[in-house]
Amino acid sequence: MKKDIINVALVGFGTVGSGLVSIMLDPASELSKKLGFDLRLVKIVDKNIVRDRGISLPEGILTTDISDVLQNPDIDIVVELVGGTGFAKDLTLSAIQAGKHVVTANKALLALEGNDIFTAAAKAGVEVGFEASVAGGIPIIKVMKEGLVGNRILSVYGIINGTANYILSKMTSQGVSFPNVLSEAQKLGYAEADPTFDVEGVDSAHKLAILASLAFGIPLSYDQLYIEGISKITPLDIAFASEFGYRIKLLAIAKSDGDQVELRVHPTMLQKTQMLAKVDGVYNALYVEGDAVGATMYYGRGAGDRPTGSAVLADIVDIARNIRSGAVNRVTSFGRPVNEPLPIKKMNDVCSCYYFRFSVHDKPGVLSKIAGVLGNHDISIESVIQKGRKEGGSVPLVILTHEALEDNVSKAMSEISSLKVVDEETIMIRVETGEN
Amino acid sequence: MKKDIINVALVGFGTVGSGLVSIMLDPASELSKKLGFDLRLVKIVDKNIVRDRGISLPEGILTTDISDVLQNPDIDIVVELVGGTGFAKDLTLSAIQAGKHVVTANKALLALEGNDIFTAAAKAGVEVGFEASVAGGIPIIKVMKEGLVGNRILSVYGIINGTANYILSKMTSQGVSFPNVLSEAQKLGYAEADPTFDVEGVDSAHKLAILASLAFGIPLSYDQLYIEGISKITPLDIAFASEFGYRIKLLAIAKSDGDQVELRVHPTMLQKTQMLAKVDGVYNALYVEGDAVGATMYYGRGAGDRPTGSAVLADIVDIARNIRSGAVNRVTSFGRPVNEPLPIKKMNDVCSCYYFRFSVHDKPGVLSKIAGVLGNHDISIESVIQKGRKEGGSVPLVILTHEALEDNVSKAMSEISSLKVVDEETIMIRVETGEN
Repeated sequence: MKKDIINVALVGFGTVGSGLVSIMLDPASELSKKLGFDLRLVKIVDKNIVRDRGISLPEGILTTDISDVLQNPDIDIVVELVGGTGFAKDLTLSAIQAGKHVVTANKALLALEGNDIFTAAAKAGVEVGFEASVAGGIPIIKVMKEGLVGNRILSVYGIINGTANYILSKMTSQGVSFPNVLSEAQKLGYAEADPTFDVEGVDSAHKLAILASLAFGIPLSYDQLYIEGISKITPLDIAFASEFGYRIKLLAIAKSDGDQVELRVHPTMLQKTQMLAKVDGVYNALYVEGDAVGATMYYGRGAGDRPTGSAVLADIVDIARNIRSGAVNRVTSFGRPVNEPLPIKKMNDVCSCYYFRFSVHDKPGVLSKIAGVLGNHDISIESVIQKGRKEGGSVPLVILTHEALEDNVSKAMSEISSLKVVDEETIMIRVETGEN
Repeated sequence: MKKDIINVALVGFGTVGSGLVSIMLDPASELSKKLGFDLRLVKIVDKNIVRDRGISLPEGILTTDISDVLQNPDIDIVVELVGGTGFAKDLTLSAIQAGKHVVTANKALLALEGNDIFTAAAKAGVEVGFEASVAGGIPIIKVMKEGLVGNRILSVYGIINGTANYILSKMTSQGVSFPNVLSEAQKLGYAEADPTFDVEGVDSAHKLAILASLAFGIPLSYDQLYIEGISKITPLDIAFASEFGYRIKLLAIAKSDGDQVELRVHPTMLQKTQMLAKVDGVYNALYVEGDAVGATMYYGRGAGDRPTGSAVLADIVDIARNIRSGAVNRVTSFGRPVNEPLPIKKMNDVCSCYYFRFSVHDKPGVLSKIAGVLGNHDISIESVIQKGRKEGGSVPLVILTHEALEDNVSKAMSEISSLKVVDEETIMIRVETGEN
């Protein structure tokens, strides 16, 4: 059973692939000495094996032919870093069927096709490692599968998209508009040419689906998530939030009350004193609350070649240690059976505090009209800012509410939007208050 | 090889013991369902089996006789929660010699006797789990052994004593003196009757010795640590620190430059904007910096019955999973061979920035005299606050320095203390500046 050498093949020699290779081939890492066995990178597959990645590679390691990996019986672990859900899915399933363990950083693949992939892996008796799929270098998957195993998880929430956080941080520190910061981020390589996945919350939602399965034992439920991005956030709302003592962050939130699970991604106002409010730039941070441990928090770089490579390598080592000690599938993919029938709460049933910015005509009685509609829908006001004077034009009226039901908020918003004294679209941002 | 039932015995039914039992016996935890095998608490040993801990226990589980555990061949894992280094060491070694795995939360035991204990465990082929020995419920041991395995660790530092942090937090928020906050903390049960271990940095140093072995593969080196507590910190220094934009925290710091390791526990000034500066009350937080992952941070409750119980249970499950899959010692105690010959840096060779508060006579030329001595010892000044006027009495002169050598600082301090214009003892606090 004991193998002295564990062979690894990488498919996809892009940014994260290069990070992984640079770590694995660094002689100073003394990885084999640390592990007590030989962990070898034996093949790297990519369409482009000509481009110089600035890493000196052993002779013959590069290939464009995936069958060099899938049909090589000596390869134990296949690392999928090609991205996307087309070829990546085929590759992953083929590797599993060839009896190879798979390590992937591909959150979209797992969120959308994970139920199939984990079923196939369980059937084939191989492991699928996905530490790198959520929160880059932060070992959050290991923490949830093993470190907090003694807990019923009550909630997981945090900042898990570095691009969106970078943009919001810049908008906050410099007072610049979303489109301006986005194009700057694109120039710097912090945002993709098509930034939709990052700024519209899709990437965060992929990751949240994975976290929710770990936390609550539910199947991957991406299609039932509520998703709202940051493209409508303006410097004006950031400034008002600041005046109330808040920061705006794109949060991914999963909560369970034991009967239902809440899964949502949206811009969120956090008190400036909360730890998450202080997580800036490309950093990620996740709170995990357990019934025994209370609140814990994990912080680090959510992306980047070497941070993500660190997480990929942790999975490779984990699986290699299992192969070595004859303990494959020592822990199941989600650390538990994934068969909890917990229903996902409808967004209309969610309770939250809210920030509203209405654009109203600057005349007497407007506040009382709007407050009246809110009151009729059981939405009680916590504080109000009304400023400015504009002859004939519209001025911002900002209201923070106590906890209210999303359904009531929707109805109130629709009623208020039909009032003659209200111009433009009303801005609504949910508020999470917490101790930490 | 596969055992369907793993039997656990607890020795020491105090605070953490009660937390562990309350988690393990909670039917809602569905632990066995989660794990896919039966994990049973079969014996609890304590001197006092009469006291009501508010937990309803199965018949016959309580005993005062340790041989009920050590001589019971059905017991797989012994949990040592008695504390101290006398009986706890005997018990641990006896359990190991009886072929039982051990889980402990006892940092003093490991820091002082760990080299013996881990050697005995390796010889007997059993595991010693110690997740609960550092930072309570935060799974920092698992993170360092497995989650960050692909990294060379550059540094580990943070707040790992909840009592000291509670006291400093209260002194900061309320401007109260150390003795006053201490006695309040003792009344609330946050500090022991003899608080020396917590407030003088001993407990932090025990934990730091463990972290350093994990980080750098060095043997446990408690006796080579530099240790300084918080009992000399005054509200005056906290106020001056605040004026410069800093908070004072008791930090445990381990850094490696590849050739030498720095190990030190002392009060430390941190910029208010740094994440660690915001960790208040009984919370703990640790930064771990790796060459691949960069800076990561872990935050949670550092003590308490159920948070620490959560960590103990994570170890129990880890070992049980290994027993179940025939993979005992799948990962070595420190995740690596512990045989690195790295020397511990002498405190005099450490470089740091410094805060000094001199009590000086309020007359012309004093600043120039002191600045002269500092300059002669290559200590360059970053900023100065000199305030107040007192006829004939002494006033505080506060100086922040750029990075300087500890040896030069010691020499300068001794020279300055002999100046006629300087009264009382000079206060010196090290300053750590960082990005995060």
